[in-house]
Amino acid sequence: MSKPTEVLKTAADPAGRESSPETPFVHPIRVRWGDCDPAAIAYTPNIPAWAVEAIEAWWEHHAGVDWYHTNIDRNLGMPFVHMTLDLRAPVTPRHMLQCEVVLARRGRSSVTHRVQGYQNEILCFEGSFTAVFTDAKEMTPRLPPADLLSALEKAESCSGANT
Amino acid sequence: MSKPTEVLKTAADPAGRESSPETPFVHPIRVRWGDCDPAAIAYTPNIPAWAVEAIEAWWEHHAGVDWYHTNIDRNLGMPFVHMTLDLRAPVTPRHMLQCEVVLARRGRSSVTHRVQGYQNEILCFEGSFTAVFTDAKEMTPRLPPADLLSALEKAESCSGANT
Amino acid sequence: MSKPTEVLKTAADPAGRESSPETPFVHPIRVRWGDCDPAAIAYTPNIPAWAVEAIEAWWEHHAGVDWYHTNIDRNLGMPFVHMTLDLRAPVTPRHMLQCEVVLARRGRSSVTHRVQGYQNEILCFEGSFTAVFTDAKEMTPRLPPADLLSALEKAESCSGANT
Amino acid sequence: MSKPTEVLKTAADPAGRESSPETPFVHPIRVRWGDCDPAAIAYTPNIPAWAVEAIEAWWEHHAGVDWYHTNIDRNLGMPFVHMTLDLRAPVTPRHMLQCEVVLARRGRSSVTHRVQGYQNEILCFEGSFTAVFTDAKEMTPRLPPADLLSALEKAESCSGANT
Repeated sequence: MSKPTEVLKTAADPAGRESSPETPFVHPIRVRWGDCDPAAIAYTPNIPAWAVEAIEAWWEHHAGVDWYHTNIDRNLGMPFVHMTLDLRAPVTPRHMLQCEVVLARRGRSSVTHRVQGYQNEILCFEGSFTAVFTDAKEMTPRLPPADLLSALEKAESCSGANT
Repeated sequence: MSKPTEVLKTAADPAGRESSPETPFVHPIRVRWGDCDPAAIAYTPNIPAWAVEAIEAWWEHHAGVDWYHTNIDRNLGMPFVHMTLDLRAPVTPRHMLQCEVVLARRGRSSVTHRVQGYQNEILCFEGSFTAVFTDAKEMTPRLPPADLLSALEKAESCSGANT
Repeated sequence: MSKPTEVLKTAADPAGRESSPETPFVHPIRVRWGDCDPAAIAYTPNIPAWAVEAIEAWWEHHAGVDWYHTNIDRNLGMPFVHMTLDLRAPVTPRHMLQCEVVLARRGRSSVTHRVQGYQNEILCFEGSFTAVFTDAKEMTPRLPPADLLSALEKAESCSGANT
Repeated sequence: MSKPTEVLKTAADPAGRESSPETPFVHPIRVRWGDCDPAAIAYTPNIPAWAVEAIEAWWEHHAGVDWYHTNIDRNLGMPFVHMTLDLRAPVTPRHMLQCEVVLARRGRSSVTHRVQGYQNEILCFEGSFTAVFTDAKEMTPRLPPADLLSALEKAESCSGANT
């Protein structure tokens, strides 16, 4: 019941990429017909939704947890408090959407990820997303638990090498 | 906190329609650009989503409750167990989508609604949706509470007059 | 076929509000059960989607056009190029979500709206959304047509009075 | 531009499954936090949406085409005209959702797929989905093109072996 990691491990790495500590984490998304509007490009609100999905996948990769597990099994929420997004090129179903996620900033009880979405090596969007750690039931701020803190520290040292 | 009815009353009747007991309940939906796919018609999976939304609006109209209230405040779930849907004409943003909802069948612990979606007086889809009453936390079947049972009985006598 | 305004007029003003030039435009949204995640609050990516919906409603109110009409009937696109969003309080189905939209900045071929979402008079989110005018088929920049330019100029003088 | 197959091949088989002609096609879906409602199970309208996604994946697997390609590059639409769905067990993020898709019936200008969704080897839903082949622009019925017809015939002989 409380082991989402094992069961879903294959899902966290669907395209068989190899994310080593030296390379940024990439979450591939299959853009579909129904994601597009009559302009035949992805409807804008899908973009922040995909970026948020990529950040959840980042957590799965780096800490072995998803939000269902943290919220329900561990009473740990990570609500977003800020996002900013630049949309640089249309997203379509012609290519996979490769979402590169890096840890941009770690605060005491907050975390900021930078997400860049590429299709066919063209940067389609980039954004910054800040979430805070909360007691899920009380919706009050808290510090991250030890295992997530450790994952953040490891990711921080890696992303430091990439910036 | 537990009075969604008053606060949201205007929302339940956005088009100023007058649903008397003699007329079927109609829930209007504004179809938007982002609801359409590159064929410039509503993407199919939006249709069952709208039908389900119309059924929730039916509950608001007939019993003064929404699913957030029943589930969270009253531990009453109404999960769907069956749906069938015929798609007869494309749905677009050109006209309001008028979703007519009638109580089709009332079982001891289940309820079936029929939903018909019209645009510009053309029938676009029609479907049947069966839900069961459950203890929300335990996810076990139960009978509907008295106020909902009463609302169902009233609606039943009305829809009987219409069929 | 090309007159979405008349047909949908009632939809543009579902709560019966009266938006005079002196008051900001408000687009009410009914938050539902299915919009919420297991934390029982609206799932974050719904927020930018609602803000974008509110901006489309602003266009309907101020210029009598929606994006389906501008794109398909008039080959005029308005893709977003930038958004920034602060999430200040959880959004739930307990109250209507009142989205206040004002024209924040008008460029030669771009437009920035500020959207503030309130529930029960509490500010839940606020954000800024910039779109550009394009030839919808070519996806190249263009100036807005005369009627939209005129609507923007009128809205600008009004929002000036509000800031 | 018109070769979605090569570019996206890895996406069509994210879990590394091996779908031989003798085994049904399975499309895995990662259910997420945001797919669930406050009852902590997938919100019902996601189910038909996932079934439809699985059918598009079936087409990718069996005929090397997706709907963006067929509609936009080949003017071939496949709108759904009928669906029926039984919901047997809640869907959650605890396990991958394995969507098994088989060709249930091939008409002259229509096709019916049966979709069964499993989590942890428990049948969560099963449904039947009928689509028709159309001229995408005219929205008039047509016969399927040769390559899709051939793919359907092959799939038919395989699924026959399974039923």
